[in-house]
Amino acid sequence: MAKNTKISMPAIRRLPRYYRFLYDLKCNGICRTSSRELSRRMGLTASQIRQDLNCFGDFGHQGYGYSVDQLYDEIGRILGIGDPSDTILLGAGNLGKAVANHMDFETRGFRLVGVFDDAPALIGQELHGHTIHSTDELEAICDEQKPAMAILCIPKEAAPAIVERLLACGVRGFWNFSHYDICHDHPEAIVENVHMGDSLMTLSYRMNNP
Amino acid sequence: MAKNTKISMPAIRRLPRYYRFLYDLKCNGICRTSSRELSRRMGLTASQIRQDLNCFGDFGHQGYGYSVDQLYDEIGRILGIGDPSDTILLGAGNLGKAVANHMDFETRGFRLVGVFDDAPALIGQELHGHTIHSTDELEAICDEQKPAMAILCIPKEAAPAIVERLLACGVRGFWNFSHYDICHDHPEAIVENVHMGDSLMTLSYRMNNP
Repeated sequence: MAKNTKISMPAIRRLPRYYRFLYDLKCNGICRTSSRELSRRMGLTASQIRQDLNCFGDFGHQGYGYSVDQLYDEIGRILGIGDPSDTILLGAGNLGKAVANHMDFETRGFRLVGVFDDAPALIGQELHGHTIHSTDELEAICDEQKPAMAILCIPKEAAPAIVERLLACGVRGFWNFSHYDICHDHPEAIVENVHMGDSLMTLSYRMNNP
Repeated sequence: MAKNTKISMPAIRRLPRYYRFLYDLKCNGICRTSSRELSRRMGLTASQIRQDLNCFGDFGHQGYGYSVDQLYDEIGRILGIGDPSDTILLGAGNLGKAVANHMDFETRGFRLVGVFDDAPALIGQELHGHTIHSTDELEAICDEQKPAMAILCIPKEAAPAIVERLLACGVRGFWNFSHYDICHDHPEAIVENVHMGDSLMTLSYRMNNP
């Protein structure tokens, strides 16, 4: 049960990591863990871990540690994993295809319900069990499906107009692979930017400045 | 010229963002900017920006601000963009294909020189101008090409053995899409993990806890 409403973004960003590590423990048949054990595996201090988990609820018991199953389920619930939001994919090029085929949406809080692209060669084709629709059909299909989230695998130039239309359709969240800065124009939108190039440049920096 | 050798990871991670924003300014024909202007566009405080850029060198002049061209070039130099490191891709499935076709490596400090996969159906095919080799040829090709970095688009289970072999071949850096925790086993490796699922779960959390 979330007890603290002022949770820092870094703490929120660590939650999926806890979730992944707990999943590994579950898979290895481990029933109980401690902040010290999590600390050793995750490269965080034990006190950081206790503080993080304390933000989200009363897990763990002095001298016993954490029940892996219980903590895993509770963090999944906090993340909204069990109650997936309907989502649509904009852009079925290389990146959109990889995202649709590679990501297991259902275990991460989402359900893919539609795919859109503007390329005549792609419209009507299948992607991961979904027919690719023209973006001309966006409003009609959103009216029917009411998606809460959109994945943007479209060029930066195409993004501002599409985002306007999606917001008008009631889409609130964006998983944004385009380099368009949605929040600058629409501070009300909930946006996670994926800047793969930034990660690559950070690696370049670190290899050049070891 | 980098003047501070103790630069925090958060500051390093902001460098690519500065680089992208400066590129946009260049493209819009803007020659000069200020920490206040960058602050408005990037959602950071002006003092944070001055502090970050101060870590990396003496940019900017009181009352003038920053020369966009000069700052862009200097940050590019610090990131190692002009002197690309040779890199190989392990895994030519959906994700590997998208990474090879979608990423502009040369503008991010790397040059793709080889692609490997174990699937008989893929070996011998072309991916973005590269013939896909069997991983049996890994040592022979690394001996010839001397790649400094490897991109891992392989399953977690396959990663530990491949990483061992790559380290033995002299690979130092890893752009890691597998969920294998390289640093836990090899603290000497330079690793950037890309956890797309974590980003998706963070979005789920934020949509469920607005």
